[in-house]
Amino acid sequence: MDTMLAAATLRDEAAKGGKALETVQSLTDEVGPRLAGSKGEPLAQEWAVRAMTAAGLTNVRKEAATVPVWQRGEETAELLAENPVELAVTALGGSVATPAAGLEADVVVVPTLDALEALPREKVEGKIVLVAQVMERSRDGRGYGKAVRARGLAASKAAKLGAIAALVRSIGTDDNRLPHTGAMRYEDGAPKIPAGALSIPDADLLVRLVSEGKTPRLRLVLTPQALADAPSFNVVGEVVGSERPDEIVLLGAHLDSWDLGRGAIDDGAGCAIVLEAGRNAAHARERPRRTVRVVLFANEENGSGGSKAYAKTHEAEMPKHVFALEADLGAGKVFTVRFRGDDASIAASKDLVSLLAPLAITSELEPGEGGSDIRPLRSFGVPVADAEQDATRYFDFHHTANDTLDKIDRAEIDQAAAAVTTLAYAAAHTRASFGRVPEKKHD
Amino acid sequence: MDTMLAAATLRDEAAKGGKALETVQSLTDEVGPRLAGSKGEPLAQEWAVRAMTAAGLTNVRKEAATVPVWQRGEETAELLAENPVELAVTALGGSVATPAAGLEADVVVVPTLDALEALPREKVEGKIVLVAQVMERSRDGRGYGKAVRARGLAASKAAKLGAIAALVRSIGTDDNRLPHTGAMRYEDGAPKIPAGALSIPDADLLVRLVSEGKTPRLRLVLTPQALADAPSFNVVGEVVGSERPDEIVLLGAHLDSWDLGRGAIDDGAGCAIVLEAGRNAAHARERPRRTVRVVLFANEENGSGGSKAYAKTHEAEMPKHVFALEADLGAGKVFTVRFRGDDASIAASKDLVSLLAPLAITSELEPGEGGSDIRPLRSFGVPVADAEQDATRYFDFHHTANDTLDKIDRAEIDQAAAAVTTLAYAAAHTRASFGRVPEKKHD
Repeated sequence: MDTMLAAATLRDEAAKGGKALETVQSLTDEVGPRLAGSKGEPLAQEWAVRAMTAAGLTNVRKEAATVPVWQRGEETAELLAENPVELAVTALGGSVATPAAGLEADVVVVPTLDALEALPREKVEGKIVLVAQVMERSRDGRGYGKAVRARGLAASKAAKLGAIAALVRSIGTDDNRLPHTGAMRYEDGAPKIPAGALSIPDADLLVRLVSEGKTPRLRLVLTPQALADAPSFNVVGEVVGSERPDEIVLLGAHLDSWDLGRGAIDDGAGCAIVLEAGRNAAHARERPRRTVRVVLFANEENGSGGSKAYAKTHEAEMPKHVFALEADLGAGKVFTVRFRGDDASIAASKDLVSLLAPLAITSELEPGEGGSDIRPLRSFGVPVADAEQDATRYFDFHHTANDTLDKIDRAEIDQAAAAVTTLAYAAAHTRASFGRVPEKKHD
Repeated sequence: MDTMLAAATLRDEAAKGGKALETVQSLTDEVGPRLAGSKGEPLAQEWAVRAMTAAGLTNVRKEAATVPVWQRGEETAELLAENPVELAVTALGGSVATPAAGLEADVVVVPTLDALEALPREKVEGKIVLVAQVMERSRDGRGYGKAVRARGLAASKAAKLGAIAALVRSIGTDDNRLPHTGAMRYEDGAPKIPAGALSIPDADLLVRLVSEGKTPRLRLVLTPQALADAPSFNVVGEVVGSERPDEIVLLGAHLDSWDLGRGAIDDGAGCAIVLEAGRNAAHARERPRRTVRVVLFANEENGSGGSKAYAKTHEAEMPKHVFALEADLGAGKVFTVRFRGDDASIAASKDLVSLLAPLAITSELEPGEGGSDIRPLRSFGVPVADAEQDATRYFDFHHTANDTLDKIDRAEIDQAAAAVTTLAYAAAHTRASFGRVPEKKHD
């Protein structure tokens, strides 16, 4: 059978619907949250081995990685007043702790990191800083990239001006009193101060109080702790190629999830999508010529230990990684695909784009980024692509307690699974080359 | 000026927008939660005295009431498993406590109270019961009335069969991991067991586990306590009638709110709406012939102490209460008005209905119920009406931490305030009689 015809046949079968929703249900109901170093993490790995085997993948194995262990503690924020009220707060991943009894200070509110950096030290010293960064809603989630810098950097920027703690308005697009966690990092040389996120309505309350000339005062308790790094695993399975088994099309997603929710959209959905793509490739009437390798990475959320380990373990194999894609933007429909490659990639990708048209998927000229777990592959010249999913509602739930199964629509995740199935199978089955991508071309 | 013309003029001025949103902001930002017996309650009363005075009401006063005092304690529900997960739970108002260390038991899930009552004792004894009652979304909120019985009665129905605790799927229409509290009551003769609500995604997780043949096991901690009844107050203000000052058109709302949120939609919005109606009547070019009395009731949520006190204090005045209305269904637009009266009421209400047409408000034949605070007035024959607000989203937030200012749309609450302004002013200014309503007519 012609490659294109084989891929189109598989696409049409996948588009009828598969087991993606059941896969997320199994992972989230049976395992639940699975942050690096948590009780859920090894259970999720065992689950992944079973799920890959059941999907018909072979060479299913766990590959060693090292991950940081950060555990959430108590977390409360009390707005001090005649009638004190509790604000919904959560520690950011990697934050140090407040004293056990908490700390108490006036709050300085700024709209952005730039506004924070423009403040004189005397306005900030001894205070709690709130960076009330607003995130814009959009289909492609571009607002996240713009806003999330505040989460990562607020603590160190504030600490350099003498702040004793830093809060951000949750990086999200909802109106729920459920804060969004996520990783932050400390800059070298800046004092380490506790960092948290307030729910959006709570942050906006402080913004209003300040706009009325008031000075809100908080008692903040955040008692997370960092333990020693721990051993962990990526879970890997394959559909071995029929003609070029050493050439690899990599499909990634991440198995870990933040502790507040159950990791349904982030990234149970991505795991389910790439497992469907693997299942479909394994059961295709024509085995793909190249190997499809499904990798469920450890520790994407707070350290990328899995990603680093994969790149190191498979370094010798990197020239044979011919195409890579990560599913890590929820359970929405794929609406466009962005490729990243040289002229050869662009020629080869044309076939893939035409295969996706019946799923109402276009392609864009803007180069793909690749998900965070496959980013290290770019330095080896591996062509990557993004199957962009509709993320209009994704950041309502992302990194919150609301990341649960009910947020997934069966028809949407089925479409995404069909799209990734088609891309992966066609990329693996085609005799065309995607070439190599000199890292400097786009960076 | 003709009564109708005066009312139409006031309606058109009110429809341009008023201070309703600012009023809710002031109450929720400056006072916040204000459950009976809490720190916020007296602050809210002082706020109400100031707000009524600023609105131009006279005879502003606090009228004594007695309220129960129930205080929330610790509340956690852990789903026991290899990877234990926290479920989002809250105690129902009036619940007794578990032991401080909690209780641990298997969970029996039933879809309805009827299904619970059909179970044999041996299926329930020693267990935690979850009544997974589903609430239907609708514009008029009718799904609430059907579903809320489960919240009120689950504990006693379960206790009679030997259960050690009862949970309900939150009575709401959202998909957030924020449980809905609300009052429950114990039946005489049934053992008192702790009662709570799980968030909807958490309840549905247990439903799924049971449907797969599993037996979920929970550790449940709920440590609320009931203290002695306490003195409280309704806050009352008036626009004294120009011709018939002894005849009263009563506009009610409730000042108390559940502790989890900030009481913006329930019932800061209602307070703001009736305060706008009072403000508009006070500033009308023609003072209304009858007295408009605004009553912000204490303790609607968990005991109706304010409502009972009002009916008792004003018993002698009841024959002079000619019309009553309570705003307690959020901040949405009014879409219909339901009257409750005899033939005289129906004749008089026709004028009111025609005045409301420019606000896109219809009337319905189904009789009005009157809000819960003015229900006692019905036994004195007082004609009541409901200005039905669009409650499509109300039960997403009702009785949860999500009841915050940002859930209110300015144009919508302005329309509701204009509608109640029009109804109240016309009812007070008209020379027509609304008659009396024999209690038996509808009950």
